[in-house]
Amino acid sequence: RWTVVGRMADAALFEFLHMEMVAELWSHHSDPGPGGQKMSLSVLEGMGFRVGQALGERLPQETLAFREELDVLKFLCKDLWVAVFQKQMDSLRTNHQGTYVLQDNSFPLLIRMASGPQYLEEAPKFLAFTCGLLRGTLSTLGIKSLVTASVASLPTCE
Amino acid sequence: RWTVVGRMADAALFEFLHMEMVAELWSHHSDPGPGGQKMSLSVLEGMGFRVGQALGERLPQETLAFREELDVLKFLCKDLWVAVFQKQMDSLRTNHQGTYVLQDNSFPLLIRMASGPQYLEEAPKFLAFTCGLLRGTLSTLGIKSLVTASVASLPTCE
Repeated sequence: RWTVVGRMADAALFEFLHMEMVAELWSHHSDPGPGGQKMSLSVLEGMGFRVGQALGERLPQETLAFREELDVLKFLCKDLWVAVFQKQMDSLRTNHQGTYVLQDNSFPLLIRMASGPQYLEEAPKFLAFTCGLLRGTLSTLGIKSLVTASVASLPTCE
Repeated sequence: RWTVVGRMADAALFEFLHMEMVAELWSHHSDPGPGGQKMSLSVLEGMGFRVGQALGERLPQETLAFREELDVLKFLCKDLWVAVFQKQMDSLRTNHQGTYVLQDNSFPLLIRMASGPQYLEEAPKFLAFTCGLLRGTLSTLGIKSLVTASVASLPTCE
Protein backbone atom coordinates (compact mmCIF):
# COMPACT_ATOMS: atom_id res chain seq x y z
CA ARG A 1 0.00 0.00 0.00
CA TRP A 2 2.84 2.42 0.82
CA THR A 3 4.28 2.45 -2.64
CA VAL A 4 1.06 3.09 -4.43
CA VAL A 5 0.04 5.99 -2.27
CA GLY A 6 3.52 7.44 -2.44
CA ARG A 7 3.47 7.42 -6.19
CA MET A 8 0.01 8.86 -6.25
CA ALA A 9 0.89 11.88 -4.19
CA ASP A 10 4.32 12.70 -5.63
CA ALA A 11 2.90 13.86 -8.89
CA ALA A 12 -0.69 14.44 -8.05
CA LEU A 13 -0.46 16.69 -5.02
CA PHE A 14 1.47 19.40 -6.83
CA GLU A 15 -0.66 19.15 -9.95
CA PHE A 16 -3.96 19.29 -8.08
CA LEU A 17 -2.81 22.15 -5.90
CA HIS A 18 -1.59 24.03 -8.95
CA MET A 19 -4.92 23.54 -10.66
CA GLU A 20 -6.82 24.80 -7.61
CA MET A 21 -4.54 27.81 -7.41
CA VAL A 22 -5.13 28.74 -11.04
CA ALA A 23 -8.89 28.31 -10.63
CA GLU A 24 -8.92 30.34 -7.44
CA LEU A 25 -6.91 33.21 -8.91
CA TRP A 26 -9.11 33.26 -11.96
CA SER A 27 -12.38 33.27 -10.07
CA HIS A 28 -11.51 36.07 -7.67
CA HIS A 29 -8.79 38.16 -9.22
CA SER A 30 -9.59 38.61 -12.83
CA ASP A 31 -11.54 41.39 -14.31
CA PRO A 32 -12.95 39.95 -17.48
CA GLY A 33 -10.65 42.25 -19.49
CA PRO A 34 -7.03 41.64 -20.47
CA GLY A 35 -5.83 43.86 -17.58
CA GLY A 36 -7.24 41.49 -14.97
CA GLN A 37 -5.85 38.44 -16.71
CA LYS A 38 -2.42 40.03 -16.90
CA MET A 39 -2.55 40.65 -13.17
CA SER A 40 -3.42 37.03 -12.38
CA LEU A 41 -0.65 35.80 -14.67
CA SER A 42 1.90 37.98 -12.94
CA VAL A 43 0.69 36.84 -9.51
CA LEU A 44 1.17 33.21 -10.60
CA GLU A 45 4.57 33.98 -12.11
CA GLY A 46 5.61 35.66 -8.86
CA MET A 47 4.51 32.68 -6.78
CA GLY A 48 6.47 30.39 -9.08
CA PHE A 49 9.50 32.64 -8.79
CA ARG A 50 9.53 32.52 -5.00
CA VAL A 51 8.98 28.75 -4.93
CA GLY A 52 11.83 28.36 -7.45
CA GLN A 53 14.10 30.51 -5.32
CA ALA A 54 13.22 28.53 -2.22
CA LEU A 55 13.83 25.21 -3.98
CA GLY A 56 17.11 26.56 -5.33
CA GLU A 57 18.28 27.51 -1.87
CA ARG A 58 17.87 23.90 -0.80
CA LEU A 59 20.17 22.55 -3.47
CA PRO A 60 23.41 20.95 -2.32
CA GLN A 61 26.42 23.23 -2.62
CA GLU A 62 28.01 21.33 -5.49
CA THR A 63 24.96 22.05 -7.62
CA LEU A 64 25.42 25.75 -7.03
CA ALA A 65 28.95 25.63 -8.41
CA PHE A 66 28.11 24.93 -12.05
CA ARG A 67 30.76 26.45 -14.29
CA GLU A 68 28.88 26.70 -17.56
CA GLU A 69 25.49 28.21 -18.24
CA LEU A 70 24.67 25.17 -20.36
CA ASP A 71 25.23 22.91 -17.34
CA VAL A 72 22.68 24.89 -15.40
CA LEU A 73 20.17 24.52 -18.21
CA LYS A 74 20.79 20.79 -18.40
CA PHE A 75 20.23 20.59 -14.65
CA LEU A 76 16.85 22.30 -15.05
CA CYS A 77 15.86 19.99 -17.90
CA LYS A 78 16.83 16.81 -16.10
CA ASP A 79 16.92 17.08 -12.34
CA LEU A 80 14.52 19.91 -11.63
CA TRP A 81 11.98 18.67 -14.17
CA VAL A 82 12.06 15.13 -12.75
CA ALA A 83 11.72 16.45 -9.22
CA VAL A 84 8.70 18.58 -10.07
CA PHE A 85 7.05 16.72 -12.97
CA GLN A 86 8.44 13.14 -12.75
CA LYS A 87 9.74 13.36 -16.31
CA GLN A 88 12.64 14.97 -18.17
CA MET A 89 12.32 17.81 -20.60
CA ASP A 90 12.15 16.40 -24.14
CA SER A 91 14.66 18.69 -25.80
CA LEU A 92 16.99 21.60 -25.17
CA ARG A 93 18.29 23.81 -27.96
CA THR A 94 20.45 26.92 -27.89
CA ASN A 95 21.70 29.55 -30.31
CA HIS A 96 24.91 29.77 -28.23
CA GLN A 97 24.15 33.42 -27.61
CA GLY A 98 22.29 33.10 -24.36
CA THR A 99 18.94 31.93 -25.72
CA TYR A 100 17.71 28.47 -24.80
CA VAL A 101 14.61 26.69 -26.02
CA LEU A 102 13.29 23.98 -23.70
CA GLN A 103 10.60 21.77 -25.16
CA ASP A 104 8.25 19.45 -23.31
CA ASN A 105 6.07 17.36 -25.63
CA SER A 106 3.61 16.37 -22.94
CA PHE A 107 3.74 19.05 -20.29
CA PRO A 108 1.92 17.64 -17.26
CA LEU A 109 0.11 20.85 -16.36
CA LEU A 110 -1.39 20.98 -19.85
CA ILE A 111 -2.32 17.31 -20.14
CA ARG A 112 -5.51 17.61 -18.13
CA MET A 113 -6.77 20.44 -20.30
CA ALA A 114 -9.20 19.66 -23.06
CA SER A 115 -7.25 19.64 -26.31
CA GLY A 116 -8.12 21.33 -29.55
CA PRO A 117 -7.11 24.65 -31.08
CA GLN A 118 -10.00 26.48 -29.43
CA TYR A 119 -8.45 25.88 -26.01
CA LEU A 120 -5.05 27.31 -26.87
CA GLU A 121 -5.93 30.68 -25.41
CA GLU A 122 -6.46 29.03 -22.03
CA ALA A 123 -2.88 27.76 -21.97
CA PRO A 124 -1.02 30.81 -20.56
CA LYS A 125 -2.56 30.46 -17.13
CA PHE A 126 -1.20 26.91 -16.87
CA LEU A 127 2.30 28.06 -17.79
CA ALA A 128 2.85 31.23 -15.75
CA PHE A 129 3.74 29.47 -12.49
CA THR A 130 6.30 27.25 -14.19
CA CYS A 131 7.91 30.19 -16.02
CA GLY A 132 8.35 31.81 -12.63
CA LEU A 133 9.66 28.56 -11.16
CA LEU A 134 12.42 28.42 -13.78
CA ARG A 135 13.24 32.10 -13.38
CA GLY A 136 13.42 31.75 -9.59
CA THR A 137 15.65 28.67 -9.67
CA LEU A 138 17.94 30.35 -12.20
CA SER A 139 18.07 33.42 -10.01
CA THR A 140 19.28 31.39 -7.02
CA LEU A 141 21.89 29.82 -9.30
CA GLY A 142 23.13 33.32 -10.15
CA ILE A 143 21.54 33.75 -13.57
CA LYS A 144 19.20 36.60 -14.38
CA SER A 145 16.77 35.48 -17.02
CA LEU A 146 13.65 36.21 -18.97
CA VAL A 147 11.41 33.13 -19.25
CA THR A 148 8.43 32.99 -21.56
CA ALA A 149 6.29 30.08 -22.72
CA SER A 150 4.54 29.30 -25.95
CA VAL A 151 2.22 26.53 -27.01
CA ALA A 152 1.75 25.71 -30.67
CA SER A 153 -0.33 22.59 -30.12
CA LEU A 154 -1.45 21.01 -26.85
CA PRO A 155 0.11 19.48 -24.76
CA THR A 156 3.47 20.50 -26.22
CA CYS A 157 5.06 23.57 -24.78
CA GLU A 158 8.27 25.53 -25.36
CA ARG B 1 22.49 14.15 -7.83
CA TRP B 2 19.11 12.61 -8.67
CA THR B 3 18.41 11.42 -5.20
CA VAL B 4 19.17 14.67 -3.49
CA VAL B 5 17.03 16.78 -5.74
CA GLY B 6 14.24 14.23 -5.58
CA ARG B 7 14.18 14.36 -1.83
CA MET B 8 14.36 18.12 -1.87
CA ALA B 9 11.31 18.54 -4.02
CA ASP B 10 9.06 15.84 -2.57
CA ALA B 11 8.55 17.69 0.63
CA ALA B 12 9.57 21.18 -0.29
CA LEU B 13 7.50 21.82 -3.39
CA PHE B 14 4.19 21.26 -1.63
CA GLU B 15 5.25 23.20 1.45
CA PHE B 16 6.55 26.19 -0.48
CA LEU B 17 3.53 26.27 -2.74
CA HIS B 18 1.24 26.06 0.27
CA MET B 19 3.07 28.94 1.91
CA GLU B 20 2.78 31.09 -1.21
CA MET B 21 -0.89 30.28 -1.47
CA VAL B 22 -1.57 31.34 2.11
CA ALA B 23 0.41 34.55 1.63
CA GLU B 24 -1.36 35.32 -1.63
CA LEU B 25 -4.83 34.75 -0.21
CA TRP B 26 -4.02 36.90 2.79
CA SER B 27 -2.61 39.79 0.82
CA HIS B 28 -5.45 40.09 -1.65
CA HIS B 29 -8.54 38.56 -0.12
CA SER B 30 -8.70 39.61 3.43
CA ASP B 31 -10.40 42.60 4.77
CA PRO B 32 -8.53 43.39 7.94
CA GLY B 33 -11.62 42.35 9.93
CA PRO B 34 -12.65 38.87 11.03
CA GLY B 35 -15.11 38.59 8.11
CA GLY B 36 -12.32 38.77 5.53
CA GLN B 37 -10.18 36.28 7.42
CA LYS B 38 -13.06 33.86 7.65
CA MET B 39 -13.51 34.11 3.90
CA SER B 40 -9.84 33.33 3.21
CA LEU B 41 -9.95 30.39 5.61
CA SER B 42 -12.97 28.94 3.88
CA VAL B 43 -11.35 29.43 0.46
CA LEU B 44 -8.28 27.51 1.67
CA GLU B 45 -10.43 24.81 3.22
CA GLY B 46 -12.34 24.46 -0.05
CA MET B 47 -9.13 24.12 -2.05
CA GLY B 48 -7.92 21.46 0.36
CA PHE B 49 -11.24 19.64 0.10
CA ARG B 50 -11.07 19.44 -3.70
CA VAL B 51 -7.42 18.34 -3.65
CA GLY B 52 -8.31 15.68 -1.05
CA GLN B 53 -11.19 14.45 -3.19
CA ALA B 54 -8.96 14.31 -6.26
CA LEU B 55 -6.25 12.41 -4.37
CA GLY B 56 -8.88 10.07 -2.97
CA GLU B 57 -10.16 9.29 -6.44
CA ARG B 58 -6.70 8.08 -7.41
CA LEU B 59 -6.52 5.55 -4.61
CA PRO B 60 -6.39 1.90 -5.61
CA GLN B 61 -9.72 0.12 -5.33
CA GLU B 62 -8.72 -2.02 -2.35
CA THR B 63 -8.14 1.13 -0.32
CA LEU B 64 -11.69 2.24 -1.03
CA ALA B 65 -13.07 -0.98 0.44
CA PHE B 66 -12.16 -0.36 4.09
CA ARG B 67 -14.66 -2.04 6.33
CA GLU B 68 -14.17 -0.12 9.54
CA GLU B 69 -14.13 3.63 10.09
CA LEU B 70 -11.07 3.16 12.29
CA ASP B 71 -9.19 1.58 9.35
CA VAL B 72 -9.88 4.67 7.28
CA LEU B 73 -8.54 6.90 10.04
CA LYS B 74 -5.42 4.74 10.35
CA PHE B 75 -4.94 5.06 6.61
CA LEU B 76 -5.08 8.85 6.87
CA CYS B 77 -2.62 8.88 9.76
CA LYS B 78 -0.10 6.59 8.09
CA ASP B 79 -0.32 6.49 4.32
CA LEU B 80 -1.87 9.83 3.47
CA TRP B 81 0.28 11.69 5.98
CA VAL B 82 3.49 10.09 4.68
CA ALA B 83 2.51 10.83 1.10
CA VAL B 84 1.82 14.49 1.81
CA PHE B 85 4.13 15.31 4.73
CA GLN B 86 6.81 12.55 4.65
CA LYS B 87 5.98 11.58 8.23
CA GLN B 88 3.29 9.70 10.10
CA MET B 89 0.80 11.26 12.43
CA ASP B 90 2.09 10.97 16.01
CA SER B 91 -1.08 9.72 17.65
CA LEU B 92 -4.67 8.80 17.01
CA ARG B 93 -7.29 8.66 19.75
CA THR B 94 -10.99 7.99 19.65
CA ASN B 95 -13.95 8.07 22.00
CA HIS B 96 -15.46 5.17 20.01
CA GLN B 97 -18.45 7.36 19.26
CA GLY B 98 -17.32 8.81 15.97
CA THR B 99 -14.88 11.39 17.27
CA TYR B 100 -11.20 11.02 16.43
CA VAL B 101 -8.31 13.13 17.62
CA LEU B 102 -5.25 13.11 15.36
CA GLN B 103 -2.15 14.67 16.82
CA ASP B 104 0.98 15.74 14.98
CA ASN B 105 3.75 16.92 17.31
CA SER B 106 5.73 18.65 14.61
CA PHE B 107 3.29 19.56 11.89
CA PRO B 108 5.40 20.49 8.84
CA LEU B 109 3.26 23.47 7.81
CA LEU B 110 3.72 25.00 11.26
CA ILE B 111 7.43 24.32 11.63
CA ARG B 112 8.55 27.27 9.53
CA MET B 113 6.46 29.66 11.59
CA ALA B 114 8.15 31.66 14.27
CA SER B 115 7.29 30.02 17.56
CA GLY B 116 6.08 31.65 20.73
CA PRO B 117 2.61 32.14 22.18
CA GLN B 118 2.19 35.49 20.40
CA TYR B 119 2.14 33.69 17.05
CA LEU B 120 -0.61 31.26 17.96
CA GLU B 121 -3.28 33.42 16.39
CA GLU B 122 -1.49 33.08 13.04
CA ALA B 123 -1.85 29.29 13.12
CA PRO B 124 -5.37 28.83 11.67
CA LYS B 125 -4.35 29.95 8.20
CA PHE B 126 -1.70 27.23 8.07
CA LEU B 127 -4.23 24.57 9.06
CA ALA B 128 -7.28 25.32 6.92
CA PHE B 129 -6.01 23.68 3.74
CA THR B 130 -5.11 20.47 5.58
CA CYS B 131 -8.48 20.31 7.35
CA GLY B 132 -10.05 20.48 3.91
CA LEU B 133 -7.65 17.86 2.59
CA LEU B 134 -8.74 15.40 5.28
CA ARG B 135 -12.42 16.20 4.79
CA GLY B 136 -12.08 15.75 1.01
CA THR B 137 -10.25 12.44 1.25
CA LEU B 138 -12.79 11.16 3.78
CA SER B 139 -15.58 12.26 1.50
CA THR B 140 -14.19 10.19 -1.39
CA LEU B 141 -13.92 7.25 1.01
CA GLY B 142 -17.62 7.63 1.76
CA ILE B 143 -17.40 9.37 5.13
CA LYS B 144 -19.03 12.72 5.79
CA SER B 145 -17.02 14.55 8.41
CA LEU B 146 -16.40 17.76 10.27
CA VAL B 147 -12.68 18.48 10.58
CA THR B 148 -11.33 21.21 12.82
CA ALA B 149 -7.82 21.97 14.01
CA SER B 150 -6.43 23.35 17.21
CA VAL B 151 -2.96 24.33 18.32
CA ALA B 152 -2.09 24.54 22.00
CA SER B 153 1.63 25.09 21.48
CA LEU B 154 3.57 25.33 18.23
CA PRO B 155 4.36 23.21 16.25
CA THR B 156 1.99 20.65 17.76
CA CYS B 157 -1.44 20.42 16.27
CA GLU B 158 -4.58 18.37 16.86
